[in-house]
Amino acid sequence: MLKTIIVGASGYTGAELANFITKHPELELAGLYVSENSADKGKPFSSLYGKLLGIVDMPIQPLAVADIPRACEGIDIVLLATAHEVSHNLAPDFLAQGVDVFDLSGAFRVNDLSFYEKYYGFTHQYPELLEKAVYGLAEWNAEEVKETNLIAVPGCYTTTSLLALKPLQQAGLLKPGTKPTINATSGVSGAGRKASTVSSFCEVSLQPYGVFTHRHKPEIDEHLGCPVVFTPHLGSYKRGILASINAVLNEGVTPEQVAKAYADAYQDEPIVRLLEGSYPALKNVEGTPFCDIAYAVDGEDIVLFSATDNLLKGASSQAIQCINIKYGFEMTTSLL
Amino acid sequence: MLKTIIVGASGYTGAELANFITKHPELELAGLYVSENSADKGKPFSSLYGKLLGIVDMPIQPLAVADIPRACEGIDIVLLATAHEVSHNLAPDFLAQGVDVFDLSGAFRVNDLSFYEKYYGFTHQYPELLEKAVYGLAEWNAEEVKETNLIAVPGCYTTTSLLALKPLQQAGLLKPGTKPTINATSGVSGAGRKASTVSSFCEVSLQPYGVFTHRHKPEIDEHLGCPVVFTPHLGSYKRGILASINAVLNEGVTPEQVAKAYADAYQDEPIVRLLEGSYPALKNVEGTPFCDIAYAVDGEDIVLFSATDNLLKGASSQAIQCINIKYGFEMTTSLL
Amino acid sequence: MLKTIIVGASGYTGAELANFITKHPELELAGLYVSENSADKGKPFSSLYGKLLGIVDMPIQPLAVADIPRACEGIDIVLLATAHEVSHNLAPDFLAQGVDVFDLSGAFRVNDLSFYEKYYGFTHQYPELLEKAVYGLAEWNAEEVKETNLIAVPGCYTTTSLLALKPLQQAGLLKPGTKPTINATSGVSGAGRKASTVSSFCEVSLQPYGVFTHRHKPEIDEHLGCPVVFTPHLGSYKRGILASINAVLNEGVTPEQVAKAYADAYQDEPIVRLLEGSYPALKNVEGTPFCDIAYAVDGEDIVLFSATDNLLKGASSQAIQCINIKYGFEMTTSLL
Amino acid sequence: MLKTIIVGASGYTGAELANFITKHPELELAGLYVSENSADKGKPFSSLYGKLLGIVDMPIQPLAVADIPRACEGIDIVLLATAHEVSHNLAPDFLAQGVDVFDLSGAFRVNDLSFYEKYYGFTHQYPELLEKAVYGLAEWNAEEVKETNLIAVPGCYTTTSLLALKPLQQAGLLKPGTKPTINATSGVSGAGRKASTVSSFCEVSLQPYGVFTHRHKPEIDEHLGCPVVFTPHLGSYKRGILASINAVLNEGVTPEQVAKAYADAYQDEPIVRLLEGSYPALKNVEGTPFCDIAYAVDGEDIVLFSATDNLLKGASSQAIQCINIKYGFEMTTSLL
Repeated sequence: MLKTIIVGASGYTGAELANFITKHPELELAGLYVSENSADKGKPFSSLYGKLLGIVDMPIQPLAVADIPRACEGIDIVLLATAHEVSHNLAPDFLAQGVDVFDLSGAFRVNDLSFYEKYYGFTHQYPELLEKAVYGLAEWNAEEVKETNLIAVPGCYTTTSLLALKPLQQAGLLKPGTKPTINATSGVSGAGRKASTVSSFCEVSLQPYGVFTHRHKPEIDEHLGCPVVFTPHLGSYKRGILASINAVLNEGVTPEQVAKAYADAYQDEPIVRLLEGSYPALKNVEGTPFCDIAYAVDGEDIVLFSATDNLLKGASSQAIQCINIKYGFEMTTSLL
Repeated sequence: MLKTIIVGASGYTGAELANFITKHPELELAGLYVSENSADKGKPFSSLYGKLLGIVDMPIQPLAVADIPRACEGIDIVLLATAHEVSHNLAPDFLAQGVDVFDLSGAFRVNDLSFYEKYYGFTHQYPELLEKAVYGLAEWNAEEVKETNLIAVPGCYTTTSLLALKPLQQAGLLKPGTKPTINATSGVSGAGRKASTVSSFCEVSLQPYGVFTHRHKPEIDEHLGCPVVFTPHLGSYKRGILASINAVLNEGVTPEQVAKAYADAYQDEPIVRLLEGSYPALKNVEGTPFCDIAYAVDGEDIVLFSATDNLLKGASSQAIQCINIKYGFEMTTSLL
Repeated sequence: MLKTIIVGASGYTGAELANFITKHPELELAGLYVSENSADKGKPFSSLYGKLLGIVDMPIQPLAVADIPRACEGIDIVLLATAHEVSHNLAPDFLAQGVDVFDLSGAFRVNDLSFYEKYYGFTHQYPELLEKAVYGLAEWNAEEVKETNLIAVPGCYTTTSLLALKPLQQAGLLKPGTKPTINATSGVSGAGRKASTVSSFCEVSLQPYGVFTHRHKPEIDEHLGCPVVFTPHLGSYKRGILASINAVLNEGVTPEQVAKAYADAYQDEPIVRLLEGSYPALKNVEGTPFCDIAYAVDGEDIVLFSATDNLLKGASSQAIQCINIKYGFEMTTSLL
Repeated sequence: MLKTIIVGASGYTGAELANFITKHPELELAGLYVSENSADKGKPFSSLYGKLLGIVDMPIQPLAVADIPRACEGIDIVLLATAHEVSHNLAPDFLAQGVDVFDLSGAFRVNDLSFYEKYYGFTHQYPELLEKAVYGLAEWNAEEVKETNLIAVPGCYTTTSLLALKPLQQAGLLKPGTKPTINATSGVSGAGRKASTVSSFCEVSLQPYGVFTHRHKPEIDEHLGCPVVFTPHLGSYKRGILASINAVLNEGVTPEQVAKAYADAYQDEPIVRLLEGSYPALKNVEGTPFCDIAYAVDGEDIVLFSATDNLLKGASSQAIQCINIKYGFEMTTSLL
């Protein structure tokens, strides 16, 4: 049993992680932490998430930086479901204690110091960790995940977009000089648990935001290997992301080549489902770890669709996939 | 044209009031005010309510107590869509300027000083205003509304419940010693525009609250004239209240007597619709000034249903009804 | 491994049953059947329920009455998720083949022939089966469930209402001559998967229906042991039932007596959660097998709240509880 | 007063038309018709649309082809809210009676006989009417609308897309050889009032459909004057369309040129609102006749957003705009 703790446990991703770990036969949930100033400290976890009453009742503990060594005693894994800068600050301390770090923030996803300055507003202090960190896109980087102890788990928009586009890009089927355009719509849980007018019940309404400025755009560019136009939208539902992607195929590319690219990438992957005869729908991935992908071709035009649960494949269940990969468990353990 | 201002204009009720006044042929919207510390001061109204772009673009102005005399120059009517205690503090100043006050808070609804101490947590300073204030339940107190210049417009749960129960109670058809039980479900806009976890999109879910403690229970008791059991619920929709009410009829009461009680009360009222052959549904009152009422009788058991839009008949459109009554306009002016 | 088939598998309850059986370590899903005229026959199950792609892909087979003996070869358990009259017709044939029958319809829930005539519109042909059938309210009838091979699994409104009221009624705490009044709101999945204007996206809106006429009212009366007033509502959400119940306590009943009644009934039951310090919310039971119960007392007035997922505790997971009880598995196997 | 009738009145568009006509000071609602086999014939209109109780209570009448001459006596305007082929069949009969026809179906929108064969599955019989029909995109074709008596009112996806793209295309700002890609999401009311699994409450979920095959794609191509890639989606909300459009600007096009193109097109149009500092949200156009448009430019990439209420600007209120234009009323009469 690998002893596992969650830092930043009180958010929506933390709750999903706690549930997965509780159900995982090889993991033991050894602690739920929040920052020392959190209003949630000391509460039983199920007082925040009534759904988990009787399932995860463990109290939430405050964690100061000075407490990290003690919190790490006997611990194998830490999951950081913390804000980007908090992850940036805490990860080195956990690594120093010999604990493997699975970070769900953006703090180690791109190996480029200027990226953090520009898109996250802080100066990254750990270039050597950026070097060592592996981008935990489970279906593409499994070998690298096994070799590191700092996994930067990708977020929701990027996972959903990259899983759809990478097979085409890797197979060289996209027309040079054209940019794939991604229109993705996320459920409100993507905005986190903190109260805000933006995520208020009466205010939420399908609407674009962050046009040309969202920080997931350069992350997609980086891990896809070509620039995209990315437009996120907020949708009036709790969970799930649908990405609808337009791209232009290279001259002469056949539907068979496209089909082969997707089959090669995903036919042995249990978590990516290639749909035939239907298109992804949010309802089919909500509450599941799956990424559903489909596409349609018309001449040189291709439209790709990709759907995930933003809190699961876009965060917590992909973290568990990375754990399963790193420690040699079945890919779907505790997820299905 | 009666010059009308709204104080507390930035909330949901304020927005509805602004829209009604703009459409009203006898009213002129002369000012939109918020407290002097509001983050919304100085903004065009439509930057808060994009739906009203091109319709109500007037800037929102800060209002300090000292500004009231100047703000009242040439003004006929003030609508207070402010917090209870703020209304309590401001109403006398507006009255002193000779402006008619239509207050949408709870500050003047019950003529009993101890009520405010117990349910609102403040000491009421104006017993003489409580004496003079008229409870603006439009279908029941029209004559009194004409005679005062301080109208306490009832809120959503009370309006919805009282309109259903008063015909039975006034006709003496309820069994002595039994209490009507009211289970009412309100849309989230009832919680106001302020960001809060309770009204966060991902947290809202059908759930009771304020059981045996909600301040609308004693207000219903007072204006109905008999004690009730009142259980409010939050529902996962934006607008509307449905009250489902159980009561016991007095021995020997016939369905014809019940029918007569409702017909006598409402057959000439344009805003209360007595349904036949169907039950109230929220969709039929959303965005309308109507209160839809229906009932069913089985022996001595009676079930009543009453539905309103909580922001309209439960607040703003009832305020406009009171204005229409007081100044002699058609009851439905600007509402239909 | 107990070989299990589902008849009427294409509905929402069938899908939940298929999922639970697939996850159950002691059950094997041996067949998914629909009527021989169903448009769904021959399709892979996951073409109806895209969420189950890769999980339940088995084809749906047509089942004529004449096929029952062959369909029963080697089968231990049949789950009937069929219409009331279909269950009535099929159950004897399955029993004759030595297969244990768990019926999720209303065909065997009340041991009174006139009940079916009056509320279901058909003449019941099997008084001896009514005699033998056990009402599968898991927390109350476990001993009887073990002793029969025909279990009538209760439906959603009745389960939700009875679990809340039975402790009070069994402990004799209700005031004689008063009727508990139940106002319950169900999600739209309760209306089944068949297309209908009533369950159309644009038409659904919080609204009462079946007032004084719903067939669950006499079923509650029968299994509670006292008459109730029952008012069902349709709510604009997919899943879940919340019952808000008003009742009057007998003279002199103390809160401690009430607390004891609930603790005695449920303190050792893993599926019923007695809430303290909060009230049931639909979100906390959606997708779970739980029934969450809370209450509040004010003098002789008591308000009870009970919430379930209508497709789970109100149908499929309660059927699995009955299977777990009858065959000696842990009560929560495959459910948590 | 122009006497106006609606054929196909029982659908969602018919209900909106009935409401607008009732409120219109220059129109008189003279008849509500459905096909002679409709289950709705003979019912009061408000029994279908409870919201309109007390507002539109007129009975719905059956209309056989033979009845048309009598139904046209004294009538000035007919609004056809009928199926495409029904409009195709009926329009000539109404025109023959001297009644002006405003058709909300697709039967006269494209002047190309082969279009109907290919996309609508019927052979168009009236090339001379196609010649005479004017495409009622109100902000672009007002002069032509005044000159005809057969107006083909555009539908929801096309109106929303064309209003966003036409200024760019007309000003020659789009890069030759590139296709604008439109991802549009429609509320469920776009699927009509007829019961169907697709629009069932429990089945609706954000999902693309009609990829590369939707009949609005060639209609957009035709009236825009350049080919597009069009991907419609169904969203889990009742009303509204948001189109998110990617396009590539011609070399050297400046943001100022783009701004001028939009200002030239719409600065004097009361129904199109060009947003500054925010993006279109469905909530701001729901229940309104507006089309809200905004855009963002990044180098040669431009993203356009356009939102309408699919039943209003995408159908009924645009029909009223066309009436207002043709008969010389204010553009917004009865709409604001």
